[in-house]
Amino acid sequence: MTTTVPEPSAELLQRAAQVRQAAMALGRCSDHERRQAVLAMAAGLESQRRQILEANRLDLEAAAADGLAPALVARLRLDDAKLTAAIEGVRQVAVLEDPIGRRQFHSELDQGLVLERITVPLGVLGVIFEARPDAVMQIASLAIRSGNGALLKGGREATRSCTAITAALAHGLEGTAVSPAALALLTSREDSMALLRLEGLVDLIIPRGSNELVRFIKDNTRLPVLGHADGLCHLYVDQEVNIPQAVAITLDAKTQYPAACNAIETLLVHRQVAGAFLKAAIPALEAAGVECRGDAEACALGVTMAAAEADWSLEYSDLILAVKVVDSLEDALDHIARYGSRHTEAICTTNQTTADRFLASVDSAGVYHNCSTRFADGFRYGFGAEVGISTQTLPPRGPVGLEGLITYRYRLRGDGHIAADYASGQRQFLHRSLPL
Amino acid sequence: MTTTVPEPSAELLQRAAQVRQAAMALGRCSDHERRQAVLAMAAGLESQRRQILEANRLDLEAAAADGLAPALVARLRLDDAKLTAAIEGVRQVAVLEDPIGRRQFHSELDQGLVLERITVPLGVLGVIFEARPDAVMQIASLAIRSGNGALLKGGREATRSCTAITAALAHGLEGTAVSPAALALLTSREDSMALLRLEGLVDLIIPRGSNELVRFIKDNTRLPVLGHADGLCHLYVDQEVNIPQAVAITLDAKTQYPAACNAIETLLVHRQVAGAFLKAAIPALEAAGVECRGDAEACALGVTMAAAEADWSLEYSDLILAVKVVDSLEDALDHIARYGSRHTEAICTTNQTTADRFLASVDSAGVYHNCSTRFADGFRYGFGAEVGISTQTLPPRGPVGLEGLITYRYRLRGDGHIAADYASGQRQFLHRSLPL
Repeated sequence: MTTTVPEPSAELLQRAAQVRQAAMALGRCSDHERRQAVLAMAAGLESQRRQILEANRLDLEAAAADGLAPALVARLRLDDAKLTAAIEGVRQVAVLEDPIGRRQFHSELDQGLVLERITVPLGVLGVIFEARPDAVMQIASLAIRSGNGALLKGGREATRSCTAITAALAHGLEGTAVSPAALALLTSREDSMALLRLEGLVDLIIPRGSNELVRFIKDNTRLPVLGHADGLCHLYVDQEVNIPQAVAITLDAKTQYPAACNAIETLLVHRQVAGAFLKAAIPALEAAGVECRGDAEACALGVTMAAAEADWSLEYSDLILAVKVVDSLEDALDHIARYGSRHTEAICTTNQTTADRFLASVDSAGVYHNCSTRFADGFRYGFGAEVGISTQTLPPRGPVGLEGLITYRYRLRGDGHIAADYASGQRQFLHRSLPL
Repeated sequence: MTTTVPEPSAELLQRAAQVRQAAMALGRCSDHERRQAVLAMAAGLESQRRQILEANRLDLEAAAADGLAPALVARLRLDDAKLTAAIEGVRQVAVLEDPIGRRQFHSELDQGLVLERITVPLGVLGVIFEARPDAVMQIASLAIRSGNGALLKGGREATRSCTAITAALAHGLEGTAVSPAALALLTSREDSMALLRLEGLVDLIIPRGSNELVRFIKDNTRLPVLGHADGLCHLYVDQEVNIPQAVAITLDAKTQYPAACNAIETLLVHRQVAGAFLKAAIPALEAAGVECRGDAEACALGVTMAAAEADWSLEYSDLILAVKVVDSLEDALDHIARYGSRHTEAICTTNQTTADRFLASVDSAGVYHNCSTRFADGFRYGFGAEVGISTQTLPPRGPVGLEGLITYRYRLRGDGHIAADYASGQRQFLHRSLPL
């Protein structure tokens, strides 16, 4: 993409300020009020089901006329069943445990001087989707549940669907404690880009779309971005291994959903076991429709296609797997450090010491032993919802649930306490932990 | 500053890669090994005390010849007492509780499939100081204690001091489990700037210096930056207030150390109490050498100098205080939202409901009731060390201790578990919490 990011228009600034104001009031709503608001959003969607499906039908017609790629059309389509599932998803968000108002730290600094650290909403989320009208319902409900406002920008192809959905959500919020103004839909491409420059009005950008979209966003904003551009996951098959188990894990990690970011792209096999393992794995992978691309040694052991240097850096997101034979665990670790995206890597080994070394040495958000990389997911981790998967070093990292939409604040309550008394030695700090 | 950030030189890339490699080994060191390494660093400094003081003397001579500002000379100076205190500070870092290897989350996703979230070091810190050779000792010891390597860049004025200190630290680390290569000092201005572009080699930038330095760094790097550019703190004096207490807090928050980021710059006073409060506060502030600049109403009540619009946005870092009379708590909240830097704000009130509204509404890292803003500090909070104070929205926020130098990683251990079994419904997740 060569687009440059424009200055926010006066109208966008005004809309963002309105969302921020509504979000500040929302941030003071109780758990019950926010829960009721999310249930009302579900009811709003239910009551405007016909309008939403009709709007989606028009988007699909336009997409057909424009010759939109089939994969995008599939993501754009919102039939009755998908809408029902999405509304059920909104209701499930309502029952998630409240992430706000939790005391994370509690200490008596001195007699009568008490410090607390309390979780609070981030403020306003800037969410950018490609196609996927169902994502609007999901992220809007997560935002309100966690006390955040949101500026939502859907893909151009989904404008009618997103407009109908947002109207239904606003309709639902009317009469609740949460102002409908806490959610705003942006529909122009200029606004979508300018959203990236709303420092002070937007606290976090959440991109939902292709690697290219995420990379563009990360390169063009100073706001924090939750998400990842690359998911280049590795599976390493050690010399001491249960071969049938390792074959099953390889198949699952590559084929269970090859377009997912947590599917593997590269298989590393220890030389000592490469012959026996590949003899079992290659036919199974081929039967599942996987094209293997091997280094010279892997090709000598049955992989039919040769890998180029570029293959070690490719996220295929497809039924293609790069295969490399390595000399040692160290070789595997070096390869991962060089080509990995710090998303999720796994080892198959029966040797506990080798497993522990792998788990301690690989610097990825997820490091797995004897299981599929496909478990890297907020729902599978038991978080109830997934806001995104982060491959950055700083927290939040890996699959991120509601905790990615909150922050904290320190509250200090005293009775005339001043710093000079401690600087002079007249008073001393206690730093006594209090119950949370 | 109009400097542009250069591409990293081949030499810098090589040095950074060496630090990263050493840091990866350091990250696998035990608590005991890292603790011993920090104690050895203190011993190294002790043994090269003479060389360090001599290097500092040469820096001071050069500074005098260059006509360096007295404030900078004071920060550059490292006499025997300051060096002793700094070495003692290094020893104190050694005894801080280990932040690494803590289990933050532990769950049995299914029988035999166990997920953990474990704290790990960030990797490599990029630290940029102005003058302050003692800061090199502090941050180097915090880095090693928390398992991180560091690329350190001191101010040009302090080059000889920093070189001697780094040599002493490296000398101390020899023979410990931690490689001296985990710490590297950069001495050229080009390297200092290029450090900002070491994505993938550096995980966090920590600036220690002027607001201008921090702002320049934030504007010129995609790496995360720990720290804040502005500290524009407010104190609001409510209509229901203990006047002598509020005067004492005002004095402390402004004068106890006016150059600190947590000193107040603006005082907001409720109209109902403004006459009585200012009658007591103005003479006390003037006696302490504070120049007050008031809005029209404050001037009518005795403030002698008029504030311009710009005053509400100025971080004086000096004995100057802007004073404004407001109509209500809402007015005060609006003013803070508009001009504040989200660092620390305080309210003086005897009304608990008003206090709670203030604490719930102000979106700053610290919100205080009836105490001085000067408590916003990692040591005063009881964190044992302060890496920096963050005014960003996302965690870590406010005063940040060692936890700002760590992240976490998910470890999943299974026995052949694959995602397809859960997708097909053949197996169900348990999501059973296990003890931490």
